[in-house]
Amino acid sequence: MVKAAILGATGYAGAELVHILSGHPDTELVYLASHSYAGKKFSDIYPGMKGVCDQELREDDIKKATENADVIFLSLPAGLASGIVTDEILEKSAVIDLGADFRLHDKETYEIWYKTEHHSPSLLEKAVYGLPEIHREVIKGKRLIANPGCYTTCSIMTLYPLVKAGLVKTDGIVIDAKSGTSGAGRGEKLGSLFCEVNESIKAYGVTTHRHTPEIEQELSEAAGKNIVLQFTPHLVPMNRGILSVCYAKLEKDVTEEDVRNAYSVYEGEPFVRLLDTLPETRYVKGTNLVDISWRIDKRTGNIIAMGAIDNLVKGAAGQAVQNMNIVFGLEETEGLKRGASCPL
Amino acid sequence: MVKAAILGATGYAGAELVHILSGHPDTELVYLASHSYAGKKFSDIYPGMKGVCDQELREDDIKKATENADVIFLSLPAGLASGIVTDEILEKSAVIDLGADFRLHDKETYEIWYKTEHHSPSLLEKAVYGLPEIHREVIKGKRLIANPGCYTTCSIMTLYPLVKAGLVKTDGIVIDAKSGTSGAGRGEKLGSLFCEVNESIKAYGVTTHRHTPEIEQELSEAAGKNIVLQFTPHLVPMNRGILSVCYAKLEKDVTEEDVRNAYSVYEGEPFVRLLDTLPETRYVKGTNLVDISWRIDKRTGNIIAMGAIDNLVKGAAGQAVQNMNIVFGLEETEGLKRGASCPL
Amino acid sequence: MVKAAILGATGYAGAELVHILSGHPDTELVYLASHSYAGKKFSDIYPGMKGVCDQELREDDIKKATENADVIFLSLPAGLASGIVTDEILEKSAVIDLGADFRLHDKETYEIWYKTEHHSPSLLEKAVYGLPEIHREVIKGKRLIANPGCYTTCSIMTLYPLVKAGLVKTDGIVIDAKSGTSGAGRGEKLGSLFCEVNESIKAYGVTTHRHTPEIEQELSEAAGKNIVLQFTPHLVPMNRGILSVCYAKLEKDVTEEDVRNAYSVYEGEPFVRLLDTLPETRYVKGTNLVDISWRIDKRTGNIIAMGAIDNLVKGAAGQAVQNMNIVFGLEETEGLKRGASCPL
Amino acid sequence: MVKAAILGATGYAGAELVHILSGHPDTELVYLASHSYAGKKFSDIYPGMKGVCDQELREDDIKKATENADVIFLSLPAGLASGIVTDEILEKSAVIDLGADFRLHDKETYEIWYKTEHHSPSLLEKAVYGLPEIHREVIKGKRLIANPGCYTTCSIMTLYPLVKAGLVKTDGIVIDAKSGTSGAGRGEKLGSLFCEVNESIKAYGVTTHRHTPEIEQELSEAAGKNIVLQFTPHLVPMNRGILSVCYAKLEKDVTEEDVRNAYSVYEGEPFVRLLDTLPETRYVKGTNLVDISWRIDKRTGNIIAMGAIDNLVKGAAGQAVQNMNIVFGLEETEGLKRGASCPL
Repeated sequence: MVKAAILGATGYAGAELVHILSGHPDTELVYLASHSYAGKKFSDIYPGMKGVCDQELREDDIKKATENADVIFLSLPAGLASGIVTDEILEKSAVIDLGADFRLHDKETYEIWYKTEHHSPSLLEKAVYGLPEIHREVIKGKRLIANPGCYTTCSIMTLYPLVKAGLVKTDGIVIDAKSGTSGAGRGEKLGSLFCEVNESIKAYGVTTHRHTPEIEQELSEAAGKNIVLQFTPHLVPMNRGILSVCYAKLEKDVTEEDVRNAYSVYEGEPFVRLLDTLPETRYVKGTNLVDISWRIDKRTGNIIAMGAIDNLVKGAAGQAVQNMNIVFGLEETEGLKRGASCPL
Repeated sequence: MVKAAILGATGYAGAELVHILSGHPDTELVYLASHSYAGKKFSDIYPGMKGVCDQELREDDIKKATENADVIFLSLPAGLASGIVTDEILEKSAVIDLGADFRLHDKETYEIWYKTEHHSPSLLEKAVYGLPEIHREVIKGKRLIANPGCYTTCSIMTLYPLVKAGLVKTDGIVIDAKSGTSGAGRGEKLGSLFCEVNESIKAYGVTTHRHTPEIEQELSEAAGKNIVLQFTPHLVPMNRGILSVCYAKLEKDVTEEDVRNAYSVYEGEPFVRLLDTLPETRYVKGTNLVDISWRIDKRTGNIIAMGAIDNLVKGAAGQAVQNMNIVFGLEETEGLKRGASCPL
Repeated sequence: MVKAAILGATGYAGAELVHILSGHPDTELVYLASHSYAGKKFSDIYPGMKGVCDQELREDDIKKATENADVIFLSLPAGLASGIVTDEILEKSAVIDLGADFRLHDKETYEIWYKTEHHSPSLLEKAVYGLPEIHREVIKGKRLIANPGCYTTCSIMTLYPLVKAGLVKTDGIVIDAKSGTSGAGRGEKLGSLFCEVNESIKAYGVTTHRHTPEIEQELSEAAGKNIVLQFTPHLVPMNRGILSVCYAKLEKDVTEEDVRNAYSVYEGEPFVRLLDTLPETRYVKGTNLVDISWRIDKRTGNIIAMGAIDNLVKGAAGQAVQNMNIVFGLEETEGLKRGASCPL
Repeated sequence: MVKAAILGATGYAGAELVHILSGHPDTELVYLASHSYAGKKFSDIYPGMKGVCDQELREDDIKKATENADVIFLSLPAGLASGIVTDEILEKSAVIDLGADFRLHDKETYEIWYKTEHHSPSLLEKAVYGLPEIHREVIKGKRLIANPGCYTTCSIMTLYPLVKAGLVKTDGIVIDAKSGTSGAGRGEKLGSLFCEVNESIKAYGVTTHRHTPEIEQELSEAAGKNIVLQFTPHLVPMNRGILSVCYAKLEKDVTEEDVRNAYSVYEGEPFVRLLDTLPETRYVKGTNLVDISWRIDKRTGNIIAMGAIDNLVKGAAGQAVQNMNIVFGLEETEGLKRGASCPL
């Protein structure tokens, strides 16, 4: 049994983690912490879990967490994780950080985009970017996993095979992504009210969204050269789901078969489905899947590659569990769903 | 391994059954049939299940189904099941009918409310009304299970303890129930279009809804006398969930404690949660749970008892699997979820 | 031109009032106030009104408002209006209060249900309950109009003809009402977040909702005797709309024609539509209409009367304008919509 | 009074036209036709309009329509309009076609994209593309107005100033557009069911959507050279609204001020709002407005220009009325809303 702790257990991602781990056959939840609700039962905050997880919530205290836990999941606001993870912690527990603090290899890039200081730059090189379909082998030996962002997981996985295989021009890439509202978190903000979100769609963070450098880092690495791209997120009136629609100019004479071959890099991946039809977020809802599809437009010379995930599962808690499974040598799919009920 | 067949596998209830049984450790799907989509793969119709259930759909043929299947689930329009189930079929396979044909003990009541002929009245007495929390012991020995309706499961379970214990007057009961749109099925009807359902609420079937006699039958049995009640369903702009709000006049001098004692009949039930707070359908979404709560109003002398279920799970496919588990001597909770993720 | 002031202009009801009055041919907005946003432009807070109402918002100051305004609309939290309206104010400006402070004739009933002190009980007898279809003649001569609540408008208007005509038993009445989320206001509350409301339905305020005594007051007056009834509100995942489904036991031998005659009290009413079909909130969205329909159930002896309104229009801002039109001798329908676009 | 006829009055666009014209002070509806519902009252099909438009629906017969009508609005499936409009009709009545038959100047382009024959190519040169903000002067003298499509109105108006002023490179333009579900019409299609649309987002018609050549035609004309671009539409779980997010590479040394100057072409336009904030579809809901905003990304050299409309108003019925106002010399804004209520 892997003993697991969660700091930030009552945010939407943290709670999804509680939900998934509660059904995981090889995990035991030993420490659930919540800054806002310490002292209450988890199921008081999430009544849907009554009878399944009625543990008392404790204060966010990584030192106490590390006493019992083999793995500590962090689901905290940007800037907090880098202030509490230390080499001592990592000796005792593996850390899987659902936040952004250890995703960017470059401290300065982090500080520019996140407008906050990074408190433990020396740990950056000990961390691995936890996207298993790309970095599985490296993840296996690590103690500090930077769990990728939601938009980034979806966008990187959609574009990675094309960039890796050199099928598209690396400048001019546009990612137009759409997310359900759970991505905005559980904070009591005007812009998250039902009546402010429902029956509307908007772009936000245009040219400035923090997931941009994360996507660029991974795709640049795949391409072997620096990529600067356009990323635009949108808020969609639905609970869950991300759809990334990626536009890139094909290199000369690239064929449908070339593209198919490039995506065959995902063959055998338990959480990737290559579709003939176009992805819809409902088909991955509640699962750890990535659905990917693409179309070549001969009129424009573009390829339009599309990916869909559940932002709280493959985009957060599910991928964190996938990483935990890898780190602890469990079956990678353990506790994770690979088929979606519909309508859900 | 219990070998299972499903006739009507591509309706919403049938598909949920495929989804649940695909994750059930002791079941094998041996025959999936769909009148509309025979010849296609299940995952062509429900792409969310690609990789999990890619079986070819066959014609609805109960005789072929019975050749291999230990249990046949029927999810068919009213009137069809009673025309195809026979004693011969029941000798070979247990039948769990998600439709209405075997729910009412009285043929005439059926024909009045359903406005169609019942083709096998002799089977009515061989059938059991498959609400495990009330009829568990009887279900165990039966070959023909009439799986209860969605509104009825929710309404009966909410009121049953009060009626059984004689705490409420049996005349004047009002059930005001609200359902998500999946209850209307997958038919291409104007009234089910997104733009006709979204951003609106309406009552329908006022005084005439077919679930009325089913609720009356079960509560009358519990009360030991005939109950006639008011049932009003509503369409809510959401995918899933039923909320039954039940109004009854308390008998004289009934106390909070009397009511609490009455509901203790559900103690130990794996799928019933008695709440202090009020039920919300999101807290049972995707699960086989029934959440129940109640309030006494001293001003009016009424009790307001409220129950919530997921109409496609406890209201259809989940309860069908619960019944299967009972009939085949499996753990009753096998393959069924008891905690809800939120938001979902 | 009627010069109008609004205190509380940036709540949902206040903003709807700005929207309606901006299109009213005989009104001029002379003073818009907002406690939270004073100093900003109205259209900064409601960008949908850019170009139509770009006025600067001022502090909530009824004395300044009364200097220029013929009518002051108050859309404030409970307890505030009774602290600022005085005889001096009423000499200078008519006051239409969208809040609850002057709706209940009885100070004690107010203080029990609202759990706050009433600061100007002497004004209660000068106020009129501003439901024009019932109190039109009295409204004409008044300076202080208590604009009815949303649930109450819908519920009273649905039941009034039956109670007035003595067709139903006055005990045992049940009102099961459903509201869109704008009824919860624009406050940044956890329970109003998109992800907490969407894809779910719940009852709330069971046995305790403050609109109960308001409905009882008006129906008791109509009946000529004291009525105590059951009122249960629900939160529906949609922006707007209220549906009141009212259950009452018919008196002996009441016929369909009796009921039809009773409802003919609404003949000629510009904002009441009696339907043969069942009401749906979408059919009154954006309008000042009340749609009403009913069914008699011979099995139970009940009548089920159903009404639908837009909670922000007939349930708040629209009715306030209707009252203003009456008080100032304008055409009662001026500036108010009587037909709904669909889908909206 | 302009006497108006509508053929196809019970589709969503046709019904919105009935709604708008019912409130238009200078129009009289003289002939409403519906292929599916001839013989019924309009308000039987759209009960929200009961009391406002209870006219009987007739058969789609343009000859009968032309007897009384000064203007005939056509809201018909592609290919029908070109078969019934003739020079004789145009002599008697002006025709405003909400469909696609007269939008493309080139018959072959039409037939390739619409996969249907054009029945009256000789009328193409008599038609004008009815986008008033661009072609107002030409519209004034015409009898046959091709009312633009919904996606196209939004996309063209967003990009037009940039292309016209030569500020962006004309190759590599990407338009990623999102639409509410009313754009899919009122047909009883599986893909339009509530449970198939709700809680999901998808792209569709990738590389093949018929609005592509319409956008290219207008922007090519503005640019003075041939433009081929990428257009991708999406289905959003909401009733109304279109958001077009347009990506283009800026020409060298283009400044923020250059862009601002380019958009000043819309100064004085009654239905265009240039925003500093980002557009959201809710802020134009129910109105004939276009909200436009843009951001320059110095990192990528791109401009992201965003526009929002209500697809049934500025994207269909509202623009049709705007065109009617122009053709008949009425005030252009007559009967059309310029401020949005929110939440709606």
